[in-house]
Amino acid sequence: MGKYNDSIIPDFPWETIDSDIERWLEQDIGCGDVTSDPLPLDGVRITAEVLAKSKGVASGVGGFLRILKKSDPELVITKAVPDGTQYNTGEILISVTGDARRLLRAERTALNLLTHLSGIASLTSEFVKLTVGTKAKIVDTRKTTPGLRSLEKYAVRCGGGSNHRPGLDASVMLKDNHVALVGSNLEEAIKRIRQINGHTTKVEVEVDDIDMVENAVGAGADVVMLDNMTPDDGREAVQLVGDQVIVEASGGITLENVRDWAESGVDVISVGFMTHSAPSADLSLEFKSLDS
Amino acid sequence: MGKYNDSIIPDFPWETIDSDIERWLEQDIGCGDVTSDPLPLDGVRITAEVLAKSKGVASGVGGFLRILKKSDPELVITKAVPDGTQYNTGEILISVTGDARRLLRAERTALNLLTHLSGIASLTSEFVKLTVGTKAKIVDTRKTTPGLRSLEKYAVRCGGGSNHRPGLDASVMLKDNHVALVGSNLEEAIKRIRQINGHTTKVEVEVDDIDMVENAVGAGADVVMLDNMTPDDGREAVQLVGDQVIVEASGGITLENVRDWAESGVDVISVGFMTHSAPSADLSLEFKSLDS
Amino acid sequence: MGKYNDSIIPDFPWETIDSDIERWLEQDIGCGDVTSDPLPLDGVRITAEVLAKSKGVASGVGGFLRILKKSDPELVITKAVPDGTQYNTGEILISVTGDARRLLRAERTALNLLTHLSGIASLTSEFVKLTVGTKAKIVDTRKTTPGLRSLEKYAVRCGGGSNHRPGLDASVMLKDNHVALVGSNLEEAIKRIRQINGHTTKVEVEVDDIDMVENAVGAGADVVMLDNMTPDDGREAVQLVGDQVIVEASGGITLENVRDWAESGVDVISVGFMTHSAPSADLSLEFKSLDS
Amino acid sequence: MGKYNDSIIPDFPWETIDSDIERWLEQDIGCGDVTSDPLPLDGVRITAEVLAKSKGVASGVGGFLRILKKSDPELVITKAVPDGTQYNTGEILISVTGDARRLLRAERTALNLLTHLSGIASLTSEFVKLTVGTKAKIVDTRKTTPGLRSLEKYAVRCGGGSNHRPGLDASVMLKDNHVALVGSNLEEAIKRIRQINGHTTKVEVEVDDIDMVENAVGAGADVVMLDNMTPDDGREAVQLVGDQVIVEASGGITLENVRDWAESGVDVISVGFMTHSAPSADLSLEFKSLDS
Amino acid sequence: MGKYNDSIIPDFPWETIDSDIERWLEQDIGCGDVTSDPLPLDGVRITAEVLAKSKGVASGVGGFLRILKKSDPELVITKAVPDGTQYNTGEILISVTGDARRLLRAERTALNLLTHLSGIASLTSEFVKLTVGTKAKIVDTRKTTPGLRSLEKYAVRCGGGSNHRPGLDASVMLKDNHVALVGSNLEEAIKRIRQINGHTTKVEVEVDDIDMVENAVGAGADVVMLDNMTPDDGREAVQLVGDQVIVEASGGITLENVRDWAESGVDVISVGFMTHSAPSADLSLEFKSLDS
Amino acid sequence: MGKYNDSIIPDFPWETIDSDIERWLEQDIGCGDVTSDPLPLDGVRITAEVLAKSKGVASGVGGFLRILKKSDPELVITKAVPDGTQYNTGEILISVTGDARRLLRAERTALNLLTHLSGIASLTSEFVKLTVGTKAKIVDTRKTTPGLRSLEKYAVRCGGGSNHRPGLDASVMLKDNHVALVGSNLEEAIKRIRQINGHTTKVEVEVDDIDMVENAVGAGADVVMLDNMTPDDGREAVQLVGDQVIVEASGGITLENVRDWAESGVDVISVGFMTHSAPSADLSLEFKSLDS
Repeated sequence: MGKYNDSIIPDFPWETIDSDIERWLEQDIGCGDVTSDPLPLDGVRITAEVLAKSKGVASGVGGFLRILKKSDPELVITKAVPDGTQYNTGEILISVTGDARRLLRAERTALNLLTHLSGIASLTSEFVKLTVGTKAKIVDTRKTTPGLRSLEKYAVRCGGGSNHRPGLDASVMLKDNHVALVGSNLEEAIKRIRQINGHTTKVEVEVDDIDMVENAVGAGADVVMLDNMTPDDGREAVQLVGDQVIVEASGGITLENVRDWAESGVDVISVGFMTHSAPSADLSLEFKSLDS
Repeated sequence: MGKYNDSIIPDFPWETIDSDIERWLEQDIGCGDVTSDPLPLDGVRITAEVLAKSKGVASGVGGFLRILKKSDPELVITKAVPDGTQYNTGEILISVTGDARRLLRAERTALNLLTHLSGIASLTSEFVKLTVGTKAKIVDTRKTTPGLRSLEKYAVRCGGGSNHRPGLDASVMLKDNHVALVGSNLEEAIKRIRQINGHTTKVEVEVDDIDMVENAVGAGADVVMLDNMTPDDGREAVQLVGDQVIVEASGGITLENVRDWAESGVDVISVGFMTHSAPSADLSLEFKSLDS
Repeated sequence: MGKYNDSIIPDFPWETIDSDIERWLEQDIGCGDVTSDPLPLDGVRITAEVLAKSKGVASGVGGFLRILKKSDPELVITKAVPDGTQYNTGEILISVTGDARRLLRAERTALNLLTHLSGIASLTSEFVKLTVGTKAKIVDTRKTTPGLRSLEKYAVRCGGGSNHRPGLDASVMLKDNHVALVGSNLEEAIKRIRQINGHTTKVEVEVDDIDMVENAVGAGADVVMLDNMTPDDGREAVQLVGDQVIVEASGGITLENVRDWAESGVDVISVGFMTHSAPSADLSLEFKSLDS
Repeated sequence: MGKYNDSIIPDFPWETIDSDIERWLEQDIGCGDVTSDPLPLDGVRITAEVLAKSKGVASGVGGFLRILKKSDPELVITKAVPDGTQYNTGEILISVTGDARRLLRAERTALNLLTHLSGIASLTSEFVKLTVGTKAKIVDTRKTTPGLRSLEKYAVRCGGGSNHRPGLDASVMLKDNHVALVGSNLEEAIKRIRQINGHTTKVEVEVDDIDMVENAVGAGADVVMLDNMTPDDGREAVQLVGDQVIVEASGGITLENVRDWAESGVDVISVGFMTHSAPSADLSLEFKSLDS
Repeated sequence: MGKYNDSIIPDFPWETIDSDIERWLEQDIGCGDVTSDPLPLDGVRITAEVLAKSKGVASGVGGFLRILKKSDPELVITKAVPDGTQYNTGEILISVTGDARRLLRAERTALNLLTHLSGIASLTSEFVKLTVGTKAKIVDTRKTTPGLRSLEKYAVRCGGGSNHRPGLDASVMLKDNHVALVGSNLEEAIKRIRQINGHTTKVEVEVDDIDMVENAVGAGADVVMLDNMTPDDGREAVQLVGDQVIVEASGGITLENVRDWAESGVDVISVGFMTHSAPSADLSLEFKSLDS
Repeated sequence: MGKYNDSIIPDFPWETIDSDIERWLEQDIGCGDVTSDPLPLDGVRITAEVLAKSKGVASGVGGFLRILKKSDPELVITKAVPDGTQYNTGEILISVTGDARRLLRAERTALNLLTHLSGIASLTSEFVKLTVGTKAKIVDTRKTTPGLRSLEKYAVRCGGGSNHRPGLDASVMLKDNHVALVGSNLEEAIKRIRQINGHTTKVEVEVDDIDMVENAVGAGADVVMLDNMTPDDGREAVQLVGDQVIVEASGGITLENVRDWAESGVDVISVGFMTHSAPSADLSLEFKSLDS
């Protein structure tokens, strides 16, 4: 087990999700935990360990701990791997000790966050590994789960990926819809965009045919995005314009074809699947009574 | 294309997520849409259609429309299938017309909700279909995405599944952790729980060995949950206690083994996978300029 | 003074009301405390004690302290009875020392919570005491004050009562309205509900006539609720169906008639009055300058 | 039935509680209404009437309707008395028609608001009636339910009462605590307060002994508040200083002694009981199927 | 450098803006700090100092620190002047040490608050200084920046000013609009207001002509506000009614004419400019690596 | 009066500030409008006009109207200039008719937004006009008022300016602090940033000496920002690197020197002053009774 990518995953600003945490706990606990509350657990302390039931990459450890600490401010943390850690089946990622009822009632909320983010990080790392030795960068999209944009993009970074634009205000993405709406005059559209936007936004143009690539570059694109095309198209696009603009592949990227894409010479491969369809990481929380 | 399960999927109370919608839009739009805002789209109207790129079950149509209407109150809806509808590849689920910029800036937020919920409904329906002809009911768990508990449980209902307890306050689930913490005296634990809780909460006991089943029933459980056991164990449990309590199978349920489980005679099969790992539904929003 | 019901009142998850606390303080303080702010109180510390001016049962002590600590993180707590404590006139429930201005500006907010919840706990305990020696359980209803559902249900537990369903999603309650709406076919309604709901929800049926009791049980009810009937009706209902279902009395329960109801043999007595009409507990906050 | 106090109760700014309404509904509905959702109620419309089961004064009618409209935007309102209306047992205050499920799931939330506020208005009107013919004004205090300050103060106005200061920032109230903290120099305290505060805040001084009344006035009070004193004290205070300052009675005011207080000549009588201990108004929502 | 007005500026209740702080941080940080996150700054600590680049009066120091502590709970504060401190160019107001990335990502949010509030305090102090030796009090208005009412009114106090009414519920302000709407009968309007409002609200009447002053006083005003009039008008108004009511000047007050106004004898001068148009204070945050 | 810059100011997504509007109204109205509420204004309708008392550029008209409509859903709008409109003294920007009390209680909140944003737009337009005929673009900074980032950046666009990066996640800005922290190795820092960030973020480097300009470009900067330098420095920088990178001037820009800067040939001039210190626009709301 080792830190996946050690210095490049500074911790998420967990302090910005405190009110989310409060709401998540409230939604799960509601009017009380009808299982643990009635049991004679006053003053009982317990140790809980997060156990990996399959291998993966950790993401959300700090959030997991923040949720438990919100529930039990006296929580003692004896182990916590940093986000970005690659773990194997059977390894313990986190170990904490605290009040039994307080841990039991926050357990599910904390795990739901950790397994969701670690699932994304783990899938991302699969894509990233398949690009080793190429210059292709794996990036996410805006296809994220409602309310979790910044967390999921952080999970992608934990898995070794990079982030595409965070939102509509950060970078331009001209799709065929936009171009059609303005009379198919791509050059005029880009000119107008550059005139009005500030200087920090790049202009990316989506093309769905290899014939449009040079046109996009000629019109002034900084990035050309090949939408639902093939690695061979990618190779051709790179030859045509690879020294002038960034070439991005998007649409239909899978673990099966990502290597082909990476070897085509494209600079960037964007994968919506990593954030919108990653299966949850298989992590469980094992409780141990302190006496056992 | 037909309504999956027509009268049993009353619409989600979308009115309770209005502030979530506002926040989701704010997070995506931020300081403005640097692509569409500069384009000369004042007064331009556009038609957008949600197109199925693979088959599935719809969930979240009302939420999708509410997001678009939040962005464009003048939205005209010309088609919208009800939630629970089974659709095939190539079908149009929704068709709306509205202001180009207002639709473009809400598109991603609306689609992210719809594809997430429809993904859950679609996967749920796969499990449900595999139980046809048995008495087994497919239910979800509390393993939901942070912040989306009630929406995801609704999606499960859209797919033909039923809901396990909504939160910690609604129903008792005694796991081995709980029992260990109170000195392994299950009978005393249940007695205490019944004494203190109100009369509307059922008591479910998790067992991980067939030998514990009769013990749980003897101690007063209403539901016995077989955790990570086999369909054969299920069959045995049903024979032992099936006429006294509800028997639930949980843990390790997959599309491959769910039929075996269903045929074992258990009453309920709970599947965390449906909510925490369902891939997003493959739906896209196609824009058409009104003149085209 | 002793803990009312010692091991069964685990503390409320106060961490889930932090943003409420912030809002409550903001609404009372607004642009500043125009009384204390101008006075020369820099660095002045003060001791404040919560004094009982009549007897009752404590509820909300943890919330009271959390509010004061929010205002003054340096607060020193020298006494705090646990929730559920029965207290007499003249007793001190809580004693704290802190910054004068910070205590003065949070005082009213903290007391408003404590006296509201203790009022409910105290009234609940009156009902509970009158059922001693019977099997009848005192429970609340959903008739709670807007925004305070979970806190008020907790206060009921502090007073020795139990909770009816926390919300619409936890348990079924078929009223005559529902039955009328579906053509008066109770059996079909229950069948449909059981088919679609998960396995953790019980079905309660409201009846307003003794003749309907057996009908409800025959249709499959788990609980029969006698609405606005008499203790004699209760006795009859228990004889008819008491060994098959839970019998609940509701409507018109008062401190005067609750004993009659309890002795009728019903299992559960639900009282809306405890949450929607409990008078506030008579507790005052006495300040002492540290020099006095 | 007639408007209690017709022109002086402008409607509450209900638009400022929309997010509260959303949260209240969410807390009650949670993951769905397990009673109504499974029933075959698609497209069924229903009429609901608020029926008075005892007499009182209405408050919160606009809020009640706003909650129902949030749940069912197609709601048709056929009757709604204005807030401040005095009603008798058996009268219908509100009549609406809408979608059955949407009304059923918002019913309890809407009623909880209406009965809470009408309870306060009704109790206030009892106090107000007992002061008829005197100059004494009935006012509330800051002893309000957490989160409901502005609504409860509105309910007091609906009942014919007036409002004491809305919060700590609006008006000065010097209690003995404050005076003790600054060395018992009331004159210096008031001088300092007036020097620093703006010109819109009045200064009220609490006294608990008739001997302190002239002292307070001499020190510069605008209002003298007699705390837990007797109507005879009130009479004496009025004779001493009634032409110089406003005299307020507070503490221990009940329906039994309020007339004595009013006749003592005091200007203002403040009653915490009206907001913190008013029993809920006895109003029920009767559903009628549209066919019946 | 000395405390401006030492004992009269009790610290703002910063605990009431915690959720604002969380939101402000979230809006600036979004999906991560793309500048600092990639740099190898793990474990690097840094010292940051707030340096005055021009003179002024401090306001918001506690808020500035609370924001940094939210981002870095391990923050060490080595210097922090109290709010209300007059500072000169080149002085250090605050010095803190903490984690480099955590300070860098909260820096702008913290500074934006501090410079905004200190700008208001500084401008206020300019007005206040120009009234020295007169009885005129400088007060603010309700012309504040959306969302920052209580903070900006606090900043005014830091600068030595006082606060006009905090909101619509605290004090009456009859403008000509109001009077016109009720048929120009000022006396009747005031009578009605006094009859219905509680006893803690003063009545202020706006006049825009010297001829209306005595009329306002005769009708029962507590305060007469001269709207957009001249210091000579002020002098005349004071002679006419200065011993009966408070005279306030408002409208068109500038640093150039405020002295004239103060010398006219008016009691209060209200200045909207201080809150809605104060330039930000010129404060910068200088970082020092701990090794340098 | 004419639209300032007609097609390039698409309306702000006002739907994303609905909960802010609710909170702003709540903070101003509190427990009620003690001036208008008591007056006999039931059913009285009124016309209100926004009048320009000095010239400027409009921003926030849609937000102003949304606030009034929140308060009075029946509002009738008879005139409303589009944002970006240049107006002169004496012109009417907006005219609405509605319920008197509902307009009076929302007036201040609505005006506070409109005058704040229009103040920023107006000041921005002053800067923009002074750059006419040059290629220099006027942009804002992240020095915005807490909570108002996206609105203020929109106001800048209304005034003809462009936006610098919306937040920390959109674009890289390497300041000397960053470079010092990583051992002054700018090249290595940029390489690392490019390796880890996605492909949509540009890299801007701040320099405070002309000698550093070529160094920054050599290290790989996309944008070089001249911090607190002179127009002559700007000219020199443009000559050195103007054909390779974007050159931005920042720090100390005023209406006096902006023309010099624009003529120096720099591409971008960033001005914090426009957002953090713009005086409020002088707009007033004039009420007219409908009969007058």
